[in-house]
Amino acid sequence: MKLINYTHNGLTRAGAIVDEQVVDLNLAYQAQLQAAGEYRYKEIAHAYVPSTTDELYQGGEKSLQLAQEAVDFILANPSVSAQKAVYKLEEVKVEAPVINPGKIICVGHNYREHILEMGRELPTHPVIFAKFANTILGPEDDIPFYPISEQLDYEAEFTFVIGKQARNVSEEDALDYVAGYTITNDVTYRDIQRRTLQWLQGKTVDGSAPMGPYLVTTDELKDPSGLDVVLTVNGEVRQKTNTANLVFSVQKLVSFLSNLMTLEPGDVVLTGTPGGVGVAMKPQQFLKDGDVVRIEIDKVGALENKVATAATTLVNA
Amino acid sequence: MKLINYTHNGLTRAGAIVDEQVVDLNLAYQAQLQAAGEYRYKEIAHAYVPSTTDELYQGGEKSLQLAQEAVDFILANPSVSAQKAVYKLEEVKVEAPVINPGKIICVGHNYREHILEMGRELPTHPVIFAKFANTILGPEDDIPFYPISEQLDYEAEFTFVIGKQARNVSEEDALDYVAGYTITNDVTYRDIQRRTLQWLQGKTVDGSAPMGPYLVTTDELKDPSGLDVVLTVNGEVRQKTNTANLVFSVQKLVSFLSNLMTLEPGDVVLTGTPGGVGVAMKPQQFLKDGDVVRIEIDKVGALENKVATAATTLVNA
Repeated sequence: MKLINYTHNGLTRAGAIVDEQVVDLNLAYQAQLQAAGEYRYKEIAHAYVPSTTDELYQGGEKSLQLAQEAVDFILANPSVSAQKAVYKLEEVKVEAPVINPGKIICVGHNYREHILEMGRELPTHPVIFAKFANTILGPEDDIPFYPISEQLDYEAEFTFVIGKQARNVSEEDALDYVAGYTITNDVTYRDIQRRTLQWLQGKTVDGSAPMGPYLVTTDELKDPSGLDVVLTVNGEVRQKTNTANLVFSVQKLVSFLSNLMTLEPGDVVLTGTPGGVGVAMKPQQFLKDGDVVRIEIDKVGALENKVATAATTLVNA
Repeated sequence: MKLINYTHNGLTRAGAIVDEQVVDLNLAYQAQLQAAGEYRYKEIAHAYVPSTTDELYQGGEKSLQLAQEAVDFILANPSVSAQKAVYKLEEVKVEAPVINPGKIICVGHNYREHILEMGRELPTHPVIFAKFANTILGPEDDIPFYPISEQLDYEAEFTFVIGKQARNVSEEDALDYVAGYTITNDVTYRDIQRRTLQWLQGKTVDGSAPMGPYLVTTDELKDPSGLDVVLTVNGEVRQKTNTANLVFSVQKLVSFLSNLMTLEPGDVVLTGTPGGVGVAMKPQQFLKDGDVVRIEIDKVGALENKVATAATTLVNA
């Protein structure tokens, strides 16, 4: 399933993209239950296939499976839903596949070839840092460029979302705890990141985590290794790698992180970025108003966002 | 108001501590509305004085004020509530004054006298880093010591909670955006913190942010400066400072942080720790099973937690 949230008429709800259509998961399941004669179809649907992805992840594999069956049902029986459950893609706004995750964990220095070409040794432990949920944007949003820095930079990141509570999970079982894969641009205000030892302040500016174009669930993408990753700015290739080059694989990261903390459904992990960021170019090339950043990952799709200068005024000035 | 969450009979709800009693805010307000002849007292109470602090903070100053009035009402009219709304303190378990904040932002190197005694220069910008909500414990919980390190350390932190959405707030208006003050022990696995450049992994282990004993709201504590902070381990003074020594005051932090990101009601900010942590002692003194860590701050009370060895087993071993 290609899982998203979508906004229509001011409401944001969980959906799946099928060809050029968006299916509302909760309404599709309601229709399926009603057709099966369930009087309490609304309540059952809310319990198992709720109306936002953040709640849906809590239901784990079972909820994702019921959602998939409901999608198949409604597409085969398009006229049974009392409420409109299927939209054309262009009728809605596609949002990120998570809304308000409890954790966004980012991994630094995680691409082997880039570490070696810089003459560094491979790390023994992942470097991890945080972003908060205020950073999340969808695939149709512009990246706001706030006038707090002149060094706006991009980072292509293969991303996974946790599908089941995880604590001390082994590498062997790790993929059972993953709901699916998506793409994040770990947008970074480079000078702000570097003005203190800790990176958080340059990483968690509002709107600095565009994510999408959807979450590919693990029933469709079983193996997260061997996927090409390419980032372009205005069509020019800047970053290019393959997830086979990750020092710490998805499995290793789930195991490592869950040994430190309880991972919850909907938590997001950005697995790191390869060489080629703007700050490392000679001369340095930062993003500017109007630039289009596109990240494409095999089997996960393409995330494309435009940079747009944002006004910042004091709320109480 | 001394705001907490409390657990009774398996349910966790928002309360206020008054002398040796705990008042359920939502039930107190329900009783007050019912006594005033409101038929829809449950729905009105849920809207304005909801049953957990995280929802309550969203209602801002108005909700805190209604809650205070409801507390006064129920204590003056103890027999009007159909449901038990007032408990003796020992009948309930007191929990932290936030449950699931979207952000826990920590400030590093923020006490002037400690920076100067280390021969360092005062920083031009706050150093900020993150913990996630999996770290939060209440004042009656033990600090779990997981067998992943032998270097468990304490950090006394004067803490504030955001009471109103904040974006680009000036220092002058900053305190209008604060709901109140509490104490956090920024428990740190010191070797894990230091094994990579980014501190997150040593800071966000489960249960590493005991918080309490309650939140003192800003109507009771108007000025966050000039408060003595003392941390003891088994009665021995280890850290001692005054919030007047903060390089970046509460006002400066609200302004600085809200210039980078939107702060939301319930977000938590730990303002930094002074000298005297275990890792800096000669010889180094780390926490061990059974140690009692107590942090006392003027007008904010005392937070005391015991360290208890925790078992970690693989969930799927």
